[in-house]
Amino acid sequence: MFSKFLPKDFNFFDLFDKQVSYAVAAAVLFKEIVQKDAVGEDSLNKMQEIEHQADEVAHDIIARLNKTFITPFDREDIHLLASQLDDVVDMINTITSRLKVYNVTGVDKNMIEFADVIEKSVKAVACAVNGLRNIKNIKVVSELCVEINRLENVGDTMRDNVLAQLFKTEKDPIVVIKMKEIYQDAETVLDVCEDVAHVVETILLKQA
Amino acid sequence: MFSKFLPKDFNFFDLFDKQVSYAVAAAVLFKEIVQKDAVGEDSLNKMQEIEHQADEVAHDIIARLNKTFITPFDREDIHLLASQLDDVVDMINTITSRLKVYNVTGVDKNMIEFADVIEKSVKAVACAVNGLRNIKNIKVVSELCVEINRLENVGDTMRDNVLAQLFKTEKDPIVVIKMKEIYQDAETVLDVCEDVAHVVETILLKQA
Amino acid sequence: MFSKFLPKDFNFFDLFDKQVSYAVAAAVLFKEIVQKDAVGEDSLNKMQEIEHQADEVAHDIIARLNKTFITPFDREDIHLLASQLDDVVDMINTITSRLKVYNVTGVDKNMIEFADVIEKSVKAVACAVNGLRNIKNIKVVSELCVEINRLENVGDTMRDNVLAQLFKTEKDPIVVIKMKEIYQDAETVLDVCEDVAHVVETILLKQA
Repeated sequence: MFSKFLPKDFNFFDLFDKQVSYAVAAAVLFKEIVQKDAVGEDSLNKMQEIEHQADEVAHDIIARLNKTFITPFDREDIHLLASQLDDVVDMINTITSRLKVYNVTGVDKNMIEFADVIEKSVKAVACAVNGLRNIKNIKVVSELCVEINRLENVGDTMRDNVLAQLFKTEKDPIVVIKMKEIYQDAETVLDVCEDVAHVVETILLKQA
Repeated sequence: MFSKFLPKDFNFFDLFDKQVSYAVAAAVLFKEIVQKDAVGEDSLNKMQEIEHQADEVAHDIIARLNKTFITPFDREDIHLLASQLDDVVDMINTITSRLKVYNVTGVDKNMIEFADVIEKSVKAVACAVNGLRNIKNIKVVSELCVEINRLENVGDTMRDNVLAQLFKTEKDPIVVIKMKEIYQDAETVLDVCEDVAHVVETILLKQA
Repeated sequence: MFSKFLPKDFNFFDLFDKQVSYAVAAAVLFKEIVQKDAVGEDSLNKMQEIEHQADEVAHDIIARLNKTFITPFDREDIHLLASQLDDVVDMINTITSRLKVYNVTGVDKNMIEFADVIEKSVKAVACAVNGLRNIKNIKVVSELCVEINRLENVGDTMRDNVLAQLFKTEKDPIVVIKMKEIYQDAETVLDVCEDVAHVVETILLKQA
């Protein structure tokens, strides 16, 4: 928000923009993956590559934070934002890897629906984080946070419905074990996006 | 503890008292629910209403914290207390919703026992938080924290016994999946109460 | 790092050394346990005793932290380090207790491999924490952190392979439920060691 106070040679906003771009890339790739019959080696490697790059930016932010006196907003909020954005990518990568490890095949319309809500939420997170750069965006960023909260509630209901259906119709306990974990993890991505929205709201509140 | 320094128009202690009253309401309702054959729509809605109100108080505390210079105890402890009390209600609401989603019916004496220990622990948490208002309560509050720790140990043993029994006697893996999650979540409520007790102890230590 | 500023009558480094010695004791005992056919009462009690002692040191560190003005490194890092080292021991104790509660018998070479990596990682954590005492150790401590990160990646791959194998070959869903939880918890020990390494790296960065 006070970009003029920032060190000249790097900019926390640029690093956060980079970090959220990886989160969006992961969410978009995840949607592509669940629309196919099975997780291919290619998609898995691409996702791990995104996760690795996102991890490096998170480390970079935290390393610079510990060497910088003047920061655009509170240090603990920068730390929290970087580590929660990292959690978003980690979680999407974990679900992808589980789909492969559990050898889940076949297109599952519930997973596609989840992937769609995840993509929407992560894109809203990216816009909100991009918007932190300028205090004039305060209203738009606030509205994005409300939208992220709304999508988390949508995800809660989706997970409850999908689990109820799974336990009602699926007779193979091994399939229940696999899919229960994957659907719950999918909802967790939306929880973590909501955590990011809370940090963003805190940053806005402190500046207002 | 230094209530005279508090802003005139609101009081963190009043907000915390409100928050713990919702936690107690959730614990009492949860005990009523598990004593019945199945989770009714009515109980479910009532629980979600409590969760929603508790969530609003938590948001209110954190919003005011970010706008207030003088606080009755360390800012990070206020933040932690508000978010962990919120976790208590969230977790009780989650278990209730799982009982419904998994269509768990029949009165289960183990769940009643858990609900009883949860109610005891949440009520001790409420008394401890209420007691923070006055430094004269330090001894009583300390004793309540010891009791909350004790109840967490009781819960650990209960969960271990119940899980051992479940795996020994239940032959239907689908039932094992459901009940294992619900018992583990029930024990988690006691863990979160213990986390609250740790924050309360930290607040006491800093004032002593 | 600035040990001369430390209070005379106690020393945070001594307390951390004590805490990591319990973590090492837990990791060594865990390896012994999984090399036997079943978890005996004796081993279980010994593990709980270690967990209890580790818990007391963690409480001691946090209590003293709240009463001390000058600390060898940032207060929040001391708090985080103490609570994450406590999580390491807690998690090893939890897995041991699950092996008993789920009545898991028979020597499992995958668990032995996990126990071996856990022992390596916890010993590296212990060396890294011991090394914080003297700024001259900065290079060695950094290398230990890199090694702890590497072992976490090893554990990730191990867990994925073991879970893939479990779901492919094990036909009894009850066994799948038990072993899936235990392998995932074993990997979590390595995650928590990595969290410790991150705090240690933060402490180094701030001093550098």
